[in-house]
Amino acid sequence: MAKDFSTREENYSQWYNDIVIKADLAENSAVRGCMVIKPYGYSIWEKMQAALDKMFKDTGHSNAYFPLFIPKSFFSREADHVEGFAKECAVVTHYRLKNADDGQGVVVDEDARLEEELIVRPTSETIIWDTYKNWIQSYRDLPILVNQWANVVRWEMRTRLFLRTAEFLWQEGHTAHETREEAEKETALILDVYAEFAEKFMGVPVLKGVKSANERFAGAVDTYCIEALMQDGKALQAGTSHFLGQNFAKAFDVKYLNKENKLDYVWATSWGVSTRLVGALIMAHSDDQGLVLPPKLAPIQVVIVPIYKKMEQLEAISVKANAIKDALQKKGISVKFDDRDTYKPGWKFAEYEFKGVPLRLAIGPRDMENGTVEVARRDTLEKEILQMEDIENKVEHLLDQIQENLYRKALNFREDNTRYADTWDEFVDLIENKGGFVYAHWDGTTETELAIKEKTKATIRLIPMGDDEKEVGKCILTGKPSSRRVVFARAY
Amino acid sequence: MAKDFSTREENYSQWYNDIVIKADLAENSAVRGCMVIKPYGYSIWEKMQAALDKMFKDTGHSNAYFPLFIPKSFFSREADHVEGFAKECAVVTHYRLKNADDGQGVVVDEDARLEEELIVRPTSETIIWDTYKNWIQSYRDLPILVNQWANVVRWEMRTRLFLRTAEFLWQEGHTAHETREEAEKETALILDVYAEFAEKFMGVPVLKGVKSANERFAGAVDTYCIEALMQDGKALQAGTSHFLGQNFAKAFDVKYLNKENKLDYVWATSWGVSTRLVGALIMAHSDDQGLVLPPKLAPIQVVIVPIYKKMEQLEAISVKANAIKDALQKKGISVKFDDRDTYKPGWKFAEYEFKGVPLRLAIGPRDMENGTVEVARRDTLEKEILQMEDIENKVEHLLDQIQENLYRKALNFREDNTRYADTWDEFVDLIENKGGFVYAHWDGTTETELAIKEKTKATIRLIPMGDDEKEVGKCILTGKPSSRRVVFARAY
Repeated sequence: MAKDFSTREENYSQWYNDIVIKADLAENSAVRGCMVIKPYGYSIWEKMQAALDKMFKDTGHSNAYFPLFIPKSFFSREADHVEGFAKECAVVTHYRLKNADDGQGVVVDEDARLEEELIVRPTSETIIWDTYKNWIQSYRDLPILVNQWANVVRWEMRTRLFLRTAEFLWQEGHTAHETREEAEKETALILDVYAEFAEKFMGVPVLKGVKSANERFAGAVDTYCIEALMQDGKALQAGTSHFLGQNFAKAFDVKYLNKENKLDYVWATSWGVSTRLVGALIMAHSDDQGLVLPPKLAPIQVVIVPIYKKMEQLEAISVKANAIKDALQKKGISVKFDDRDTYKPGWKFAEYEFKGVPLRLAIGPRDMENGTVEVARRDTLEKEILQMEDIENKVEHLLDQIQENLYRKALNFREDNTRYADTWDEFVDLIENKGGFVYAHWDGTTETELAIKEKTKATIRLIPMGDDEKEVGKCILTGKPSSRRVVFARAY
Repeated sequence: MAKDFSTREENYSQWYNDIVIKADLAENSAVRGCMVIKPYGYSIWEKMQAALDKMFKDTGHSNAYFPLFIPKSFFSREADHVEGFAKECAVVTHYRLKNADDGQGVVVDEDARLEEELIVRPTSETIIWDTYKNWIQSYRDLPILVNQWANVVRWEMRTRLFLRTAEFLWQEGHTAHETREEAEKETALILDVYAEFAEKFMGVPVLKGVKSANERFAGAVDTYCIEALMQDGKALQAGTSHFLGQNFAKAFDVKYLNKENKLDYVWATSWGVSTRLVGALIMAHSDDQGLVLPPKLAPIQVVIVPIYKKMEQLEAISVKANAIKDALQKKGISVKFDDRDTYKPGWKFAEYEFKGVPLRLAIGPRDMENGTVEVARRDTLEKEILQMEDIENKVEHLLDQIQENLYRKALNFREDNTRYADTWDEFVDLIENKGGFVYAHWDGTTETELAIKEKTKATIRLIPMGDDEKEVGKCILTGKPSSRRVVFARAY
């Protein structure tokens, strides 16, 4: 394991890629830009899905499923949306292949051309609002609180496993409401759900805020987001919640009869997180020894490794190990007892360390004599000898501590890498030499935002929303007045 | 609700469609052949997924995810496979749209033509075996026991909601093994899992057997299946498990170093069930009053409806109803308390009856006085008055009874509609006038099978496998010798 493995210092980008590949999380496929998510990586996504799905359902949402394909003309209905999404996409033009005339394989049957091309969904607002038109007549039909777990395709030119792929998996919520207020409340509710998920499950602290016009979702009135900071000082957008106003209702002519018996357009939101979160999770906590996973999203939370020379020793240890495994499983902890005889304990230690298993228990003949077990934490790489008695509660407590510690570490890192710039020179110095989040004044124009991006590669990650964050100042680039600082960073 | 609703007698096909549409299960979309699965329908699929996923994991399988797109050339590698799958499919030829010259919408950008067309997966054997090639070097890498939950597309000309749609959702298992025996064992294991799921969860009895060569999966050595009988006497294939031999390993050159240190091709299986099962579930149990769902797959297992005139009555009833709801939820039973004031009890009764909620509890002022509750079973449409005391155990017991009763009813129906034909005239009479499963002798040739299909529209659903089912006889059409009866039916 872990040989030929880059450190963060040497090459951060290579370090990330090495972890993804060597920890068996994902790999590139034969199809450009599309990845294969391997079982170990997919089981992290399954844990994320389960936690998020429960949060969505607890807040009143249901799942549904809409078509993979969207008629080309649907994109043209919402002017901003088409600019943002209909360009780099997978286009289905034919529905049949036939045997090649030369007998070599199959070719597209030109007689089977579609009348209207179909686009593989890059996001589903258009097909969903075309559907909602038939579901909504009066206020009694509202709200609609629907989510979809699906694959989407955006034809990305530069791809990176999990972080940016042509096809990715995600959830997309699409809700319909009677009033602006209700839709805005929904947007905020989901932003809170995302932030809570990031912090409590992923152990990743996030900033919440609103995007600038330039970074807004194509077709939204406002895009809210959560932003996390990676260990290389770059920001990563971890989730977005869009207030769509009546834009899609107008584009697809979705009106409802309100309580005053008048027709009005419906208010909308949409929101999503994707397999990109797996990339964020890997980058947020892992170290030069490999993957580090928070217990709440670790496919295997505890591994038990027996240390033995003779088979009788293994047999005795196995009885004990299986008893511990049962006790842990009763507490809902996922445990693997690795009693394979084909690998040595040292190899297993390295393997599970590299794969980020939060806790490793090792039991050898001496432990059997003393009634002890060696416990190694992945987050701190610390080992201690514990009495076996009541081990399930000790393990449960340790897992909580690891979860908490990873969050605290990430929070400290973010705090250490959050800075204020008051002048252009300060700003450029921080962005170029320190990275991290930089709070600075901006004059509110897209022109200035793009100029700053052009000069420094830094973008506005979000505009904080709290009233207590208002502050009078001057734009770092133009010197024009500003009423609050915004958060800049280079980003994934 | 339930007005304008066809009975099975009047028009079975319309009856099915009415249930799907009016019970809010699914509807057609703007994209030809693609359906929208509505929240209520999708929640049935989620219940199916949860049960199956657990069964797959309990038998050692993990989930993974492979690309939506498959390079066109991959299909040509396996000769039978390309004939079966590469023809009617969605073909992606371009990766960009651009604004139309006339300013009206967007058009395909001819400069963005893919070098090799991509096929939207109709099934994933080819892309997965291309991937497995890199995962498998030696016997230590085997077995691979992987499943994928995904959407697939087959360009069907005639579609029916759930039963046959261009895009559908399914799971596809793809396993790799050292030996023929191990792969055959896996094929049989999964067939048993499918049969157990159909019978225990769906309440649908199934026959197990092997397909004739003509009905075999394109690329398989043998296709095993489960077949169910619908209320109109037509069969429905509910799941297939394929023994692929070394066909895909040879097509994609996947060899492994065996324990004798020799290179050998890997043995394979694949298996799948789809959203078609939702269609089978609807057809198997529903009646002229609407949908009937087995408790184990019902999104709402129990609904509580309050009967009241004054708001004080509702308040008192609500206290009791919520207590019952809590007690039932503690037992893992999903309950809805419908206290909406906008609909009358009679309307609610009809609504939940039509939507197939297994048990309805009604509580009125008299029940409050007497400490009783009215309980109505959806399967038998029977009502009884029960003492509220210990109601959670009574409800639990009733749900078990309903599950059991639906299975027994379906089994009786199948037994009543399973017949034997010894002559051609008998066979034709049964197929045309009675429907159901017909056991008859067949000479084993595809030619005869196709001739029978041509004359009667009946196909061989399966060939029974048990030794005890061997029987010497003569083919009903050709009179040639046969060693066992096979099962004929008209089918979905």
